[in-house]
Amino acid sequence: MSAAQSDPGSASGPDPLRNPLPDLAQALRDAAAAVKVELDQLLAPVAGPQGRVLEAMRYASLGGGKRLRPFLVLESARLFDVPRASALRTGAALEMVHCYSLVHDDLPAMDNSDLRHGRASAHKAFDEATAILAGDGLLTRAFGVLADPDTHPDAKVRCALVAALAHAAGSDGMVGGQMIDISPERAQLDLDGIKRLQSMKTGALFTFACEAGAILGQAEAAARDALLGFAGDLGLAFQIVDDLLDAEGSAEDLGKPTGQDEALGKATFVGQLGNEGARAEASRIVKDACARLEIFGKKGSLLRATARFVLERRS
Amino acid sequence: MSAAQSDPGSASGPDPLRNPLPDLAQALRDAAAAVKVELDQLLAPVAGPQGRVLEAMRYASLGGGKRLRPFLVLESARLFDVPRASALRTGAALEMVHCYSLVHDDLPAMDNSDLRHGRASAHKAFDEATAILAGDGLLTRAFGVLADPDTHPDAKVRCALVAALAHAAGSDGMVGGQMIDISPERAQLDLDGIKRLQSMKTGALFTFACEAGAILGQAEAAARDALLGFAGDLGLAFQIVDDLLDAEGSAEDLGKPTGQDEALGKATFVGQLGNEGARAEASRIVKDACARLEIFGKKGSLLRATARFVLERRS
Repeated sequence: MSAAQSDPGSASGPDPLRNPLPDLAQALRDAAAAVKVELDQLLAPVAGPQGRVLEAMRYASLGGGKRLRPFLVLESARLFDVPRASALRTGAALEMVHCYSLVHDDLPAMDNSDLRHGRASAHKAFDEATAILAGDGLLTRAFGVLADPDTHPDAKVRCALVAALAHAAGSDGMVGGQMIDISPERAQLDLDGIKRLQSMKTGALFTFACEAGAILGQAEAAARDALLGFAGDLGLAFQIVDDLLDAEGSAEDLGKPTGQDEALGKATFVGQLGNEGARAEASRIVKDACARLEIFGKKGSLLRATARFVLERRS
Repeated sequence: MSAAQSDPGSASGPDPLRNPLPDLAQALRDAAAAVKVELDQLLAPVAGPQGRVLEAMRYASLGGGKRLRPFLVLESARLFDVPRASALRTGAALEMVHCYSLVHDDLPAMDNSDLRHGRASAHKAFDEATAILAGDGLLTRAFGVLADPDTHPDAKVRCALVAALAHAAGSDGMVGGQMIDISPERAQLDLDGIKRLQSMKTGALFTFACEAGAILGQAEAAARDALLGFAGDLGLAFQIVDDLLDAEGSAEDLGKPTGQDEALGKATFVGQLGNEGARAEASRIVKDACARLEIFGKKGSLLRATARFVLERRS
């Protein structure tokens, strides 16, 4: 067996789906493929000199990644029997926002990272100006997709999606979290500060992903609150595991540089709790997350499996 | 009389309202003041390390500028007796998008401009990373404002605003126009190519400004089309005059560097038509623009005056 055969991800970067539970692995693969088709259609290439920004938007969003956020949209929407087309468009819009944030975060003035999903980050594959514009274009397009009647027939639902995503992605959410992450105060954060940073920078989009299902399904408060609680826990566990992978993992496995946090002197969950303590904390949080989904019974089983996957992932 | 008294703009950059017609001057000042109050409220400062991005968002949007785009929203909305609060929020959202585009355009990787509205551009007053995030935050917040029920009671109207702004600001509009503007093909554009670039980079937001009035007012097709035609003309005249000011004006008058187009070897209206030819073309277009507003009678007089002001402005 050749090296390429023994590692199915080697040709296109690391395999993002290594080690999930069997049913979940198939569901994640199906969702990732469907989201990619949706993104490919929503970001159709155009001719002329402006075509370059579309090329970069496609490069940044079609290239790889676990598609965990759109998967959460699909699974949370399924709890309320939302038509899959609505959930897919919403998931694709969210993925555009996630991908724009990676493009801007990787810029030399920000995290200065040349590697993403096992290949050149957007500003290396294109140039800085194009990467900035591609990020801007993806963010803008995401809101256009959500506001389109194809996403949901009820305009109130579409407006609620736009408002929730703007809140999650903006200065009270992801953008604010990134601001904290690059601030001088970053190195000295205590555990509560790290949690707050995480809930803004990473957690806000996870929360939107699950909230979106409830919005699309016009869910009642109890169901919505259960999903929001689950998402908050999931985002926190995700970030703790991210810190562990950065401390313990290899660049080859992750498709991006490791050891960055320590090199930059960033306060992390691992730094505060130690490797074992951080892993125990993540386990506890995932257990809580799963318990929150009890009201959905068997319908929530893939979401619960996702939480366990987040804990056990190696990339 | 002191120098400061003879030039009311000297303390805070050039006076953006020099030379408009008397009634228009007052209306522009009133609108600019109201939009600033609205922006100040929508972008309230926050505590903590994430507060820095809000500071930069406020710096970039409260600092100056003619507020011509929100003024066009207010005036086009007035044609349909839209409540002023709705128009003001929409105008403020549009101004956030305009200001984000200036912040990102000024970045070293883009136009590398250190001066904006007569003072340091955002990445000089803060730093590049903060400027990138502030732009992202402004763009994101704009969509949140439009989707909020405070902007209009009808969710269909709010969704139409979000969709129209996403279209105008995205890769088919402003972002695509900026991509062309920094492309290698830029230097060789012919007159049609320059017009197309302009209609995307500058025209799209002017068009949205007038379209927004029609959307808020749920206007009939004829009124909407008249406004869209007016906006297209206005944007084109605005850009021709911008080229003339870049070729003829002073940095002191404009509050930003001049002679940039020639230095960068960019094809411009002035380069294609000559100074006199470009001025004649702008005059002709403004006359057309005013004719399109005849269906609104006296109610359109300030919009017509705005078109003449765009032609006669010196900054």
